[in-house]
Amino acid sequence: MKKNVKEAEGKLGILMPGLGAVATTLIAGVAAINKGFSKPIGSVAQLGHIRLGKRTDNRNPLIKDFVPLAKLTDIVFGGWDVYADNVYEAASKAKVIEQHQLDAVRETLEAIQPMKAVFDRNFVKNLDGNHIKTGLSRRELVEAVRADIRGFIADNGLDRVVIVWCGSTEKYIESDDLFSSLAKLEAALDQDDQRIPPSMIYCYAALLEGVPYVNGAPNLTCDVPAIVELATQNRVAIAGKDFKTGQTLMKTIVAPGLQARALGVEGWFSTNILGNRDGLVLDDPENFKTKEVSKLSVLEEILDADKNPELYGDLYHKVRINYYPPHGDNKESWDNIDIFGWMGYKMQIKINFLCRDSILAAPIVLDLALFIDLAQRADMYGIQEWLSFYLKSPQTAPGLPAEHDIFKQLMKLQNTLRHIMGEDLITHLGLDYYQDLVESMQ
Amino acid sequence: MKKNVKEAEGKLGILMPGLGAVATTLIAGVAAINKGFSKPIGSVAQLGHIRLGKRTDNRNPLIKDFVPLAKLTDIVFGGWDVYADNVYEAASKAKVIEQHQLDAVRETLEAIQPMKAVFDRNFVKNLDGNHIKTGLSRRELVEAVRADIRGFIADNGLDRVVIVWCGSTEKYIESDDLFSSLAKLEAALDQDDQRIPPSMIYCYAALLEGVPYVNGAPNLTCDVPAIVELATQNRVAIAGKDFKTGQTLMKTIVAPGLQARALGVEGWFSTNILGNRDGLVLDDPENFKTKEVSKLSVLEEILDADKNPELYGDLYHKVRINYYPPHGDNKESWDNIDIFGWMGYKMQIKINFLCRDSILAAPIVLDLALFIDLAQRADMYGIQEWLSFYLKSPQTAPGLPAEHDIFKQLMKLQNTLRHIMGEDLITHLGLDYYQDLVESMQ
Amino acid sequence: MKKNVKEAEGKLGILMPGLGAVATTLIAGVAAINKGFSKPIGSVAQLGHIRLGKRTDNRNPLIKDFVPLAKLTDIVFGGWDVYADNVYEAASKAKVIEQHQLDAVRETLEAIQPMKAVFDRNFVKNLDGNHIKTGLSRRELVEAVRADIRGFIADNGLDRVVIVWCGSTEKYIESDDLFSSLAKLEAALDQDDQRIPPSMIYCYAALLEGVPYVNGAPNLTCDVPAIVELATQNRVAIAGKDFKTGQTLMKTIVAPGLQARALGVEGWFSTNILGNRDGLVLDDPENFKTKEVSKLSVLEEILDADKNPELYGDLYHKVRINYYPPHGDNKESWDNIDIFGWMGYKMQIKINFLCRDSILAAPIVLDLALFIDLAQRADMYGIQEWLSFYLKSPQTAPGLPAEHDIFKQLMKLQNTLRHIMGEDLITHLGLDYYQDLVESMQ
Amino acid sequence: MKKNVKEAEGKLGILMPGLGAVATTLIAGVAAINKGFSKPIGSVAQLGHIRLGKRTDNRNPLIKDFVPLAKLTDIVFGGWDVYADNVYEAASKAKVIEQHQLDAVRETLEAIQPMKAVFDRNFVKNLDGNHIKTGLSRRELVEAVRADIRGFIADNGLDRVVIVWCGSTEKYIESDDLFSSLAKLEAALDQDDQRIPPSMIYCYAALLEGVPYVNGAPNLTCDVPAIVELATQNRVAIAGKDFKTGQTLMKTIVAPGLQARALGVEGWFSTNILGNRDGLVLDDPENFKTKEVSKLSVLEEILDADKNPELYGDLYHKVRINYYPPHGDNKESWDNIDIFGWMGYKMQIKINFLCRDSILAAPIVLDLALFIDLAQRADMYGIQEWLSFYLKSPQTAPGLPAEHDIFKQLMKLQNTLRHIMGEDLITHLGLDYYQDLVESMQ
Repeated sequence: MKKNVKEAEGKLGILMPGLGAVATTLIAGVAAINKGFSKPIGSVAQLGHIRLGKRTDNRNPLIKDFVPLAKLTDIVFGGWDVYADNVYEAASKAKVIEQHQLDAVRETLEAIQPMKAVFDRNFVKNLDGNHIKTGLSRRELVEAVRADIRGFIADNGLDRVVIVWCGSTEKYIESDDLFSSLAKLEAALDQDDQRIPPSMIYCYAALLEGVPYVNGAPNLTCDVPAIVELATQNRVAIAGKDFKTGQTLMKTIVAPGLQARALGVEGWFSTNILGNRDGLVLDDPENFKTKEVSKLSVLEEILDADKNPELYGDLYHKVRINYYPPHGDNKESWDNIDIFGWMGYKMQIKINFLCRDSILAAPIVLDLALFIDLAQRADMYGIQEWLSFYLKSPQTAPGLPAEHDIFKQLMKLQNTLRHIMGEDLITHLGLDYYQDLVESMQ
Repeated sequence: MKKNVKEAEGKLGILMPGLGAVATTLIAGVAAINKGFSKPIGSVAQLGHIRLGKRTDNRNPLIKDFVPLAKLTDIVFGGWDVYADNVYEAASKAKVIEQHQLDAVRETLEAIQPMKAVFDRNFVKNLDGNHIKTGLSRRELVEAVRADIRGFIADNGLDRVVIVWCGSTEKYIESDDLFSSLAKLEAALDQDDQRIPPSMIYCYAALLEGVPYVNGAPNLTCDVPAIVELATQNRVAIAGKDFKTGQTLMKTIVAPGLQARALGVEGWFSTNILGNRDGLVLDDPENFKTKEVSKLSVLEEILDADKNPELYGDLYHKVRINYYPPHGDNKESWDNIDIFGWMGYKMQIKINFLCRDSILAAPIVLDLALFIDLAQRADMYGIQEWLSFYLKSPQTAPGLPAEHDIFKQLMKLQNTLRHIMGEDLITHLGLDYYQDLVESMQ
Repeated sequence: MKKNVKEAEGKLGILMPGLGAVATTLIAGVAAINKGFSKPIGSVAQLGHIRLGKRTDNRNPLIKDFVPLAKLTDIVFGGWDVYADNVYEAASKAKVIEQHQLDAVRETLEAIQPMKAVFDRNFVKNLDGNHIKTGLSRRELVEAVRADIRGFIADNGLDRVVIVWCGSTEKYIESDDLFSSLAKLEAALDQDDQRIPPSMIYCYAALLEGVPYVNGAPNLTCDVPAIVELATQNRVAIAGKDFKTGQTLMKTIVAPGLQARALGVEGWFSTNILGNRDGLVLDDPENFKTKEVSKLSVLEEILDADKNPELYGDLYHKVRINYYPPHGDNKESWDNIDIFGWMGYKMQIKINFLCRDSILAAPIVLDLALFIDLAQRADMYGIQEWLSFYLKSPQTAPGLPAEHDIFKQLMKLQNTLRHIMGEDLITHLGLDYYQDLVESMQ
Repeated sequence: MKKNVKEAEGKLGILMPGLGAVATTLIAGVAAINKGFSKPIGSVAQLGHIRLGKRTDNRNPLIKDFVPLAKLTDIVFGGWDVYADNVYEAASKAKVIEQHQLDAVRETLEAIQPMKAVFDRNFVKNLDGNHIKTGLSRRELVEAVRADIRGFIADNGLDRVVIVWCGSTEKYIESDDLFSSLAKLEAALDQDDQRIPPSMIYCYAALLEGVPYVNGAPNLTCDVPAIVELATQNRVAIAGKDFKTGQTLMKTIVAPGLQARALGVEGWFSTNILGNRDGLVLDDPENFKTKEVSKLSVLEEILDADKNPELYGDLYHKVRINYYPPHGDNKESWDNIDIFGWMGYKMQIKINFLCRDSILAAPIVLDLALFIDLAQRADMYGIQEWLSFYLKSPQTAPGLPAEHDIFKQLMKLQNTLRHIMGEDLITHLGLDYYQDLVESMQ
């Protein structure tokens, strides 16, 4: 039975706190695609197909032809940043995209000026931008962001807006009594409590405005009871956290494979080298801690040592990130995986991924924006776990263990889309094909 | 609704044509496990869990506690080989398992003598064993194998037998009119047609005896209409082909991950170095061809260029196997994968797998034997596609494209087990958890 | 005592049979350097320093300031090719250098038109160019090439010319009675003997013209007694064979290190993937054979199993080249080296070199041209073994084993330069520094 | 002119502070070799050859047949350790050598009991042994070590002794006024100055006893003016510092090759994973600092950015060591090297070394002991720079830059041996072979 989903009419605004390498790569790419210069490679929403019905039915539409998504030509980008560079300037400095490709969409990019950011250097020591909202209390910052959002809608004649956090990783904090209910958070805001991180101010403001919010960094932000309460109350969709790119993407691909085959894992050493602003921010141990917790969690859930102590009980998992300027945005990872098989014999897997951080992240931002907009139109509010496919530390219902296996996440994503559109869910059982075969032989 | 499955009572015989590195590693391992020296690492049937019901139900029994499988202590091993070495001698020569571990189960291994093999050097040029059934026509060879099977059952007081081909890869042949119906195959056998490969003689004999047959090499064997017809007629389970270990295992893990994320693949170069008998056989181009076809097919299906021409239309896929004696059974693979993402930017993945061929293959043989025995007891006869999880070139119903994605194969395996036992199939939708959450907040 | 070396006055012509990726990369680079757009990275003659006297003397001039070499601005390029493309067109097709860099020197490159090539498809099956001298006997071809050389000198007002073979690898031939003396080669030319390869025609013509010749491919060409005799008789310098780039470069760097430390080597597996014209030519087994012989020889000499049977007696060395279009000129190599140390314990080294074939080769061509011109001016004629630093299969005096260790080759190169200029040879003994220290303390 | 070298008569004692993985691997190996069970793989002194005279002379004796070295059967091992385990127990815990190989020489190993160590936990925080000389002042510790040495000589009827430090890396200290002259060091000892590290106490005691001392760790120890003064005054040989194994060995092999070819290097990232006691000690930042300084220095000297600013002026070099228990002593390194060539085009080299720390180090200890004993007998006292071949941070005369290129170090080692024995030094010039060839043709 198909859900009642509003059509994706009018313009969709995508606002991003953090107009750095990832956001500008996304904006430049969409501009190039809209001009016919490029294709949305890496976007499941744009290029992915979905099987419907039986394997032999040959029904495999593009996802964008199956569910009602905003068109790329209906998207308007905007955002906030601690630096005043317009998107053309910021993209040129990020050096992700070749200059001649930026020049081909220069006008579009130059037109996008960041709004002043909500920033508190206590949360990101290695950044020092000065395009910042100053002299305001936490509560006043919320109101300023709300005004930014309304202004953006009005100026651009938008039908809907979503926000996707593309900023730096904030320093590590644990969930606190402060965030344990909406009432407490409200009180803390009123007292200008400096423990409230900037990212939460964006999120809180968004939800007050009825704007869906996705968190692309490992910061807590919306993964606290207060925010879930507000999202539920205001019927707004939220999702997070931490875009799953590069090494962790590979890890959530490979680990389920090893686990599927009941192969033991004794050690997993992951190192990264990268030289972009993200690398600089993570060179600070307090910020690395936030990222490390996010990166370490994936193996625990996938391998589940409690259930499989003979296989994963002794797992030693170590993750390192190294700032290495020669590589710029071309993040590179090297993994050594010590596995063991039949009779305990040891084997090793080495994976060297010469990737590009923002190139992998940009289409994820796009998909999350398009899908959370769909969720909102389908009146699916609160936590959108079905978007965990894109996220390193999926936010889930309290007490529900997150599913990190990317293939189960994909199944969840696709069956959710089928469910929304009233199609049969797929189980891959497929015994009926053979029933047919046997009958044909009798 | 639970199927009617016979219990796994009495002894199960596992007969293997080819008592080389793989088979002897399996036999030695099971002997060690039964003595308490080792664990069945890599066996999903023994160590894998299966989730039942909702995530929050915490029902995750071991598969072996969920479905009725033969116990390891109820297994009796036997087989055929072109060399007369008993299993202890053959395992010692294979150098997969350390000598002191073989010595700990020496008596058990020495007791297993191979029966004389059906062998035709036209199909495997690089082998020259002489422990062979000679002077017999194809039809007489069938009868000789049937007699071997019956003798094995009688000598060991067995309740049931299954056969798993663990022999070398035969030279490449294409399916032929000869194999297009049971009547034609029968006629060819009567005429002693030399085009019938030895592996098919074992299979044909097995099915006449009502013994399930699994094909672990890329030979056609049971993947022809004549054999499917016989299996259906005699209500016997069959499965094949080509154990999925090492490089192809990794490929069917990684490729679905790239495809899931709509990342493009421009090239995939796979090279292997190995120094065991398998490497020697595959050093002959005619035999390599059989393996190459099997290895190449997996990417085509997973990436499906027809559906995704922008992403996979230009894929160049090359597979090489190199005989390299210094490594013995420690097969090593190196893959270079050229991918591209957002705006066409290129990235590379390199995977170096220092694996052990027989260590990965042995538990696969075990699982296939245990599960096909289960299928037979559940009266699931003909092609068992749900075992494709273990196989490089899954045999499917005519016209049905094979599913190579190991995660869909796993889903198929697990949902088949749930189906057999009358449990709910799992779809990973999981929206109900959030319904509960919302309700709890209202 | 300094040798009597003529100054490098006037213009130097560099003629190259084969104006493909390597030659056009060289020409474009020199044009860019002369315009101040680039630096001669990879050229020892241009950027290398040479230590003179004691370590504490601090005399480390650039080599080009130490010995009299032709200036880059005095070089005039020319050549022959089987395709009629001018150098701008050929470089654009080769895709080694980015188009905007080629465009910056377009005029210079367009002005260089290839002369028609001496070509015989029996020697290179996978090429099919038609810009070829046709209808001529071997002897007439010699005269045609001589005329080409003279015309090139006259047209460009050159002082001197050298030839460096940059063409494809010819099919494998062994040295033959035909090539065993100058008289026999002359007779064969007169009989238009089809066993004489095209490369030898260029070389023979060059020597008749008194033009030094360097062979950059593994073809025999000048590595036969007949040519050595002619070079000696005409007092012309020759050198060869096979530019040492990429994987073999790394091999001659790493193997001497292992040998130096008396570490054993049990196996060395080398594989290459490349997609340029070189890869296409080497896809033919007859041409690969020539390259394989050249590539295999280096380890034998460096490791010398006869002297070190415990360490290298069982070495298994395998080299593979795979045509892989997605990589174009970006040749990539992967090596697995199985070594063993104290008490025979095994270790492994894996080297993955993401290189660029022509980028590595171009400065080698330059250095060889500049140095063989120096040799000629110093009246050092016949085989120039001191240039073996750049070559995979150094040509040496009959009976003299080639030295493949790149560090001994470097020592030889540098001490030859010191010898030419009358400087003390360097032995790295250096005990005198410590004599001084002891005396200072007494 | 041959030097006057005393013969290697009688027994040679090798004393090692630190009877851990390295020392016990050496002792077990020598015991096995002396019993005929093993070969001294990795020992240049035992298995290396040296060329004498011209290439065509075919004079390539084993080094041990060329210079008078102590025989392996004349060596007696001893040492000090912070743990009381005898060598059999310590080797068993180190898990470098398989137990059955240790058992074959068990008696020999059990007989070697460590003497109590000089230890100060301020210098190695992560160790906690208690087999320690307690309650003594620095001066008294010196006397205690001298007594240990004399007792060891007397008990074993030794002719000569050498000491090789095989202990852990001490925390980072810089050379201090305290160590700037022998008089100041003496005064500090008399005042029990706690800044004097334990390693220096061993060294100081050794030199007072006329015993040569080699420093295998990156600690300063003998690399201070006070110790050089004492060594010169007492005519004793010293050498250091830091055994060159694993990653740095590869670095000093590969970097000279890149430098030789004038290839630029923009970045070099080196990471290590290891799980032995060495890894544990280096997990402390203060101790890692000592190692890091030693590891970083090698590239600076080899690449010499001052002389080659276009090639190495922007080099970013980063070294990381990670404690990773799953690997034990099987240290593994991964290097990413970003190089550039002709016209600045970028290339990458990745090196993955699956090595064994103690297996590589053990023969180095042996060679250093044998060669420093030779030096002492040849009356070559003070700093032995010619042994830099084995050392990461070679100690040199004040003001003399260290030579890190392993091939120049090898040349230095070999020419020193030739010099000692009165043979011609080798320069690799070799023009005479071609003079002969030309003459033969005239």
